[in-house]
Amino acid sequence: MKVDGKDYRTIWMEAGAVKTINQPLLPHRFEIVTLATHRDTSEAIKTMLLRGAGAIGAAAGYGMAQVFLEAPGEEPARSQYVAAGYERLKNTRPTAHDLFYALDRVRAAGEAAESSPAAASAAVAEAERLADAYVEAGRLIGRHGVELIRDGARILTHCNAGWLAFVDWGSALAPVYFAHRAGRKVRVIADETRPRCQGSRLTAWELQAEGVPVEIVADNAAGLLMRRGEIDLVITGADRIAANGDVANKIGTYEKALCAQANEIPFYVAAPLSTFDLNCPDGDHIPIEQRSEEEVLYAYGRTDAGEFTRVRLAPEGAAARNPAFDITPAELIAGLITEKGILRPNAEEIARVLAPEG
Amino acid sequence: MKVDGKDYRTIWMEAGAVKTINQPLLPHRFEIVTLATHRDTSEAIKTMLLRGAGAIGAAAGYGMAQVFLEAPGEEPARSQYVAAGYERLKNTRPTAHDLFYALDRVRAAGEAAESSPAAASAAVAEAERLADAYVEAGRLIGRHGVELIRDGARILTHCNAGWLAFVDWGSALAPVYFAHRAGRKVRVIADETRPRCQGSRLTAWELQAEGVPVEIVADNAAGLLMRRGEIDLVITGADRIAANGDVANKIGTYEKALCAQANEIPFYVAAPLSTFDLNCPDGDHIPIEQRSEEEVLYAYGRTDAGEFTRVRLAPEGAAARNPAFDITPAELIAGLITEKGILRPNAEEIARVLAPEG
Repeated sequence: MKVDGKDYRTIWMEAGAVKTINQPLLPHRFEIVTLATHRDTSEAIKTMLLRGAGAIGAAAGYGMAQVFLEAPGEEPARSQYVAAGYERLKNTRPTAHDLFYALDRVRAAGEAAESSPAAASAAVAEAERLADAYVEAGRLIGRHGVELIRDGARILTHCNAGWLAFVDWGSALAPVYFAHRAGRKVRVIADETRPRCQGSRLTAWELQAEGVPVEIVADNAAGLLMRRGEIDLVITGADRIAANGDVANKIGTYEKALCAQANEIPFYVAAPLSTFDLNCPDGDHIPIEQRSEEEVLYAYGRTDAGEFTRVRLAPEGAAARNPAFDITPAELIAGLITEKGILRPNAEEIARVLAPEG
Repeated sequence: MKVDGKDYRTIWMEAGAVKTINQPLLPHRFEIVTLATHRDTSEAIKTMLLRGAGAIGAAAGYGMAQVFLEAPGEEPARSQYVAAGYERLKNTRPTAHDLFYALDRVRAAGEAAESSPAAASAAVAEAERLADAYVEAGRLIGRHGVELIRDGARILTHCNAGWLAFVDWGSALAPVYFAHRAGRKVRVIADETRPRCQGSRLTAWELQAEGVPVEIVADNAAGLLMRRGEIDLVITGADRIAANGDVANKIGTYEKALCAQANEIPFYVAAPLSTFDLNCPDGDHIPIEQRSEEEVLYAYGRTDAGEFTRVRLAPEGAAARNPAFDITPAELIAGLITEKGILRPNAEEIARVLAPEG
C-alpha cells in the first residue's frame, strides 16, 4: 500500500537485515526500523513492534532466514545455532499459527540444502516466497471477499487485520480495499480494540490513507449499533483457526460475534490457509496469550505537545487481567474468507480445502 | 463510605452550596468541589464532574433547591427563574431518568409552598429527603441483592454503579459490599468501560478502598472469561428502565448481557424505583446521549510524572462515534434488584410494584 505516495510492504529484507514499520509509533509517526539479526527480529515480534497474523508469519520467516545467515559453517555448532534460533523465534508469541507455520517452512528449506551457504540462500528464498505468498493471499482474499460487500455497506471490524497485519492488502480489510477501488461506497466502523488500540491507531490510519471512510467506536458500542441496524456486515481477521472452524482472534472478537448473531448480521473471518491449524481440533485447544497487566492499567498515545507517553487509568496497586485473544466458536461464523474462496466453518470443508496443503 | 477513615457521601449540601467529589480526578486525587449556584451544579452534571444515576438524581435535586434559594421574591420573576433553572438542569443529560424524577419532585415541593422563603426551605428539605432516600435505596438493594452472591462468587460489573454513582452504597455494588461485610469471599471483575473508564478509575478505587478484591479487564475480555467459566454472576446499574423492563445503561452493557446469555450466566440489573420510567413503553423509546468524539479519540489519565493529561490514540482527522448508553432488552435480564426486592423484568411485575409510587 502507499504511504505518502510511495509503495510499502509492512516488512521486507535488505542485505540480511529485516526492515519493518515501527507500529507502536503509528498513527503519529511513520518510521522504518532495521532488525539486524534474528535476535532483533525475535524481540520485535515479542514486543509487538510489528503484530498481526501475516506480519508475524513473514517476520518469523525472515528471522529464521537470518538464523541461517548468522549460523557458523561447521557442525555441530551450525545445527545447534539453527535449533536455538528456531526456539527463540518460536517462543515469542503463543497464539498466532502463522509464526510456527513460517518457522517450519523456512527451517525445512534451509535444512534441505547441502552446504551452509546454500542453506542460507535457500532459507532467504523461502522467506521471500512466503512474504510474496502473503501478498498474493491478501489479494485473493480481497477478490473473494469483495462479493460480500454491496454498495453502501457499513462494515464493522475489530483490531487491525489490514495490510499492517500482513505484508500487503491484509485479511479482513482486503475485501474492503477491493470494494473501495471498485467504486462501491463502503464505510468501516473500527472498534478501537483496547488495550493496545490497534483499531483506532492502525485500522483508522490505514483506511484514511486509502481514502476509505472510517469511524472509530469504543469496543462497547458495536452492540448498540447493530441493534439499531447501523452495521451490515462484520469481518475480522484470525490468529489461528482450529480444524473445526473455531477461531482465535484478538480479544473481543467473540463478543462481536455474539452481537452479530443476536442481530442477524453476517459475521465473517478472513484469513489465509497458513492460519489454519489442523492439529488443533477445536478452539479450546488454542493457547491464549496472557499479556502484561500494564496494558490495561494504562493507555498509550501522544500528548497535545507531541510527546509519546502512557497515562495511568487505574488506581495505584490495582490488578488487571489481560488475555490477548479469545475464541469465537464456528457456529457464530458465516464463512471463512480465504485465498481459495469462502469456506463454511466446519471440519469437513476445512479438511477438504487444506488437504493438498497438509 | 469511608475515604481515608472518614465517612463521605458522594454529594451533600452545606449552607446553600452543593459539595461533591471531583470524579474526573479519581482515582489519582480525592478532592471536594463546591458548587455555589444551580448554574455550577448544572455544569457539574453536564461535564460529568459527577455521574451515575443516583448521584445525578441527588445533584439535580440539590440544584433545583438552589434554584429556589436563588429565585427573586416577587412574581412573575420568581416563577420565570424557577422555570428557567428547571430547564437548565433538565437539559444537562438526556438518558438518566433520575435527573427528571428528582427535578420534578423538588420543583413540586417548592411550588407547593405559600411564600418564597417557605418554597426554598421546602425545596431544600425535599432535596435532602431525596438524597437520604438514595442512601436507603442503596442499603435495601444491597440487602436484597446479597442473596444472589454465594461465598467465592466472581462477579462481573460494567461501568461504575457503586457509591460514587449514588449518594452512598450504590446499586450494582451494594450487594457486593453487603456480601463482603458478611464475610463472604467475593471477587469483582471490573470492565474498564471505555471511553471514560469509570470501571478502571472509579469501580476499582471504590472496591480497593473497601478491601474487596478486584481485577480490571478490557471491555473486550468478558466474553472469554465467561466462556472459560470464570464469571459466576453479572450485576450492572441502570440509567433508565422502561415499563417493559428494557434497561438503558452505560454503553457496552448490552454486549455483556449477550455474553452472559450465551454462557448461561445470570445477568442482574440493580436500580432504585426512581430509575424506572413508566412513560417509556420500551427501550427503543429511551433517548441515547451522543457524547463528544474526543472521548473516543483520546484517553485521559495521569503520567508517571504525576500530571493529568490526555493522549491521542487515533490519527489526526479521524472521526469517531460515541453513544454513551445502550439498551439491554428485558429478555436478557434475570432480575431487577430494587429496594422493594428482586423484580422479574416484565411490564406486569413492574407496574404492580411501581403503582403505589406513581
